[in-house]
Amino acid sequence: MPIITLISDLGNRDFYLASLKAKIFSQLSDVQVIDIHNHVDPFNIAQAAFVLQNVFNDFPKDTIHMIGVASGSVDELPHLGIRYRNQYILAPDNGFFSLIAEQQPDTLVELTQKLDTDQLTFPLRDLYAPAACHLARGGTLEVIGRRLETFERRTLMQPVLGQDYIRGTVVYVDSYGNAITNITREMMQTQSRGREFMIGFREADYGIESISKRYSDAGEGDRLALFNSAGYLEIALNQGHASNLLGLKTGEMIIIEFYDH
Amino acid sequence: MPIITLISDLGNRDFYLASLKAKIFSQLSDVQVIDIHNHVDPFNIAQAAFVLQNVFNDFPKDTIHMIGVASGSVDELPHLGIRYRNQYILAPDNGFFSLIAEQQPDTLVELTQKLDTDQLTFPLRDLYAPAACHLARGGTLEVIGRRLETFERRTLMQPVLGQDYIRGTVVYVDSYGNAITNITREMMQTQSRGREFMIGFREADYGIESISKRYSDAGEGDRLALFNSAGYLEIALNQGHASNLLGLKTGEMIIIEFYDH
Amino acid sequence: MPIITLISDLGNRDFYLASLKAKIFSQLSDVQVIDIHNHVDPFNIAQAAFVLQNVFNDFPKDTIHMIGVASGSVDELPHLGIRYRNQYILAPDNGFFSLIAEQQPDTLVELTQKLDTDQLTFPLRDLYAPAACHLARGGTLEVIGRRLETFERRTLMQPVLGQDYIRGTVVYVDSYGNAITNITREMMQTQSRGREFMIGFREADYGIESISKRYSDAGEGDRLALFNSAGYLEIALNQGHASNLLGLKTGEMIIIEFYDH
Repeated sequence: MPIITLISDLGNRDFYLASLKAKIFSQLSDVQVIDIHNHVDPFNIAQAAFVLQNVFNDFPKDTIHMIGVASGSVDELPHLGIRYRNQYILAPDNGFFSLIAEQQPDTLVELTQKLDTDQLTFPLRDLYAPAACHLARGGTLEVIGRRLETFERRTLMQPVLGQDYIRGTVVYVDSYGNAITNITREMMQTQSRGREFMIGFREADYGIESISKRYSDAGEGDRLALFNSAGYLEIALNQGHASNLLGLKTGEMIIIEFYDH
Repeated sequence: MPIITLISDLGNRDFYLASLKAKIFSQLSDVQVIDIHNHVDPFNIAQAAFVLQNVFNDFPKDTIHMIGVASGSVDELPHLGIRYRNQYILAPDNGFFSLIAEQQPDTLVELTQKLDTDQLTFPLRDLYAPAACHLARGGTLEVIGRRLETFERRTLMQPVLGQDYIRGTVVYVDSYGNAITNITREMMQTQSRGREFMIGFREADYGIESISKRYSDAGEGDRLALFNSAGYLEIALNQGHASNLLGLKTGEMIIIEFYDH
Repeated sequence: MPIITLISDLGNRDFYLASLKAKIFSQLSDVQVIDIHNHVDPFNIAQAAFVLQNVFNDFPKDTIHMIGVASGSVDELPHLGIRYRNQYILAPDNGFFSLIAEQQPDTLVELTQKLDTDQLTFPLRDLYAPAACHLARGGTLEVIGRRLETFERRTLMQPVLGQDYIRGTVVYVDSYGNAITNITREMMQTQSRGREFMIGFREADYGIESISKRYSDAGEGDRLALFNSAGYLEIALNQGHASNLLGLKTGEMIIIEFYDH
């Protein structure tokens, strides 16, 4: 059964999600529609991108991801159909894709199907839903779009990789209060070269000197650092709320300093 | 795969929705159950009706809609099974259906199945779920109910259609702050007769003189009016929160005045 | 189609639920995944157990229930696979099962599959999801676990059954404000021996002297007691909010006194 997913700012207090799903199931009943996250902050494409990055590899080949988070006027932008690492992404051309793309897309088109309606106030339903159904039935992007060479790029603050340090940022705080940063396991491995390190934030006396494998590696209520399953460094408290107790909000700086013993 | 939908005030913080879905999947596993809206205000059948009106046409033939919003004692009322425009509606006989019906139902019955339980505290699960499964398997309303000639009627305040004006009301404010009114595209077309117009609300200096096709037809932060996909006039701000900024709450009056140039 | 359910404290504001569902659908696309309750209070296994008890009998044979609520460090505990009354339960060995078990499990194993990852921060996804897929395909617990003789036990405060009274507790307040107690229909039947009774709480003048079959057995706004569909005594107001108006919070004492007329 094909899988169609949703990342949006639609929430669950309106009928818009239902309208979208109705459109999908009207065309194709044998499909799994999975709500990845419908509570993205309005216009926050960085958050939407981070969410997709964290789950992308969990989804099977040919999954179709629909992104309904605008960075401005969603009805003025081109809309993209993308084949990327054996899955599909449908998203506005507002830089979203550049935030997750670690390599070139396999196929990139601008969606150009004729709409049923003469006004495009809801691209997720009127443009993406039929495109997703077409792809779910085994159709190709070329049939519903026009090939593009480039896409809009946006850059996020990337971690600074120094000789003896990495300086990154908290990019997502989950509902348990765990603070997830933009520092990856690869950066850590490349920079550390076997040296010892100290992960610091806010005030110097809050250092963490090791990477844990599980929350319970720290005592109850103690702070720890680990790589989450998508490979991002996460600061947590074992059975506690790191964001509240350590003051780690989105945008907060995290520094890893390396030193020889 | 048949589709069963839910509009209710059950929320997502209890186990009642799960209990209901368990009942459905126990009888019929090959079915799509879609939550249209489970956060309707308690007892607000007008809101529930407006939600169904906005999505009804998006659903395919034979979809079964279950309405779990009471206007009083749900266990004392008759419960209706309705065939309407090629779909099914299961709802208490509390006036809900009259709020969406633009024409007579094709079939109207009172649900009369024998219950598994001797107490009816949860009609959605104990009465509607088995009825929905019966219909989803291709069964008819006549088998599970007794034909009725009439149903309870309620009237909502309808827009007043004057010679040179339409006076309507905001009936739903969505989570983006867009204010949706009970004025339809048809009313507008009938009354305008090609004349110019001014859409006014609260204070006279907030007029809108045209109907947009997309949010971005207005400048960023500017107000606009458009017809949503179900055909209702909606007052919005391009990338802003119309309800907060223009003071448009449910019940607020909207006047369209027509004039010759 | 097999059914996999979820009871967890994951909420719907993160990507963790999606990651878990992706894992399931990657292995098995023809399955129904039902969210029973993903807003359990963190670490509150008593609440999670009460939720499962209230819906367990609504689910069909071979349903697989995944419980993602820890009572401590989820990554240090053994994790159980249980066959119980023709359904499956996957849960940490933290006493959860003892709170719902009214009889011995038919089969009890500790889950011992090899993980894809070397760190177990998310047992629901990394351990339970593959186990659930194995069971959904008709596999047995013995293949993925090692037989256990015993499981961790926790006891909840049970009602006190006196000669002339039952003293119980409110254990769950639903979003309508109905206060559900740990007093069952069976206890009531056994102790009452046909006598009259008075259900009292907080202040003596708030007595209820009969058991209703439906909310509307009481006048609008009046208090009533009934047994919910899982057999637990519930104190409610007909069309009102019992918890707010009668001061019935979780933990509040409820006394039923029996007397001869």
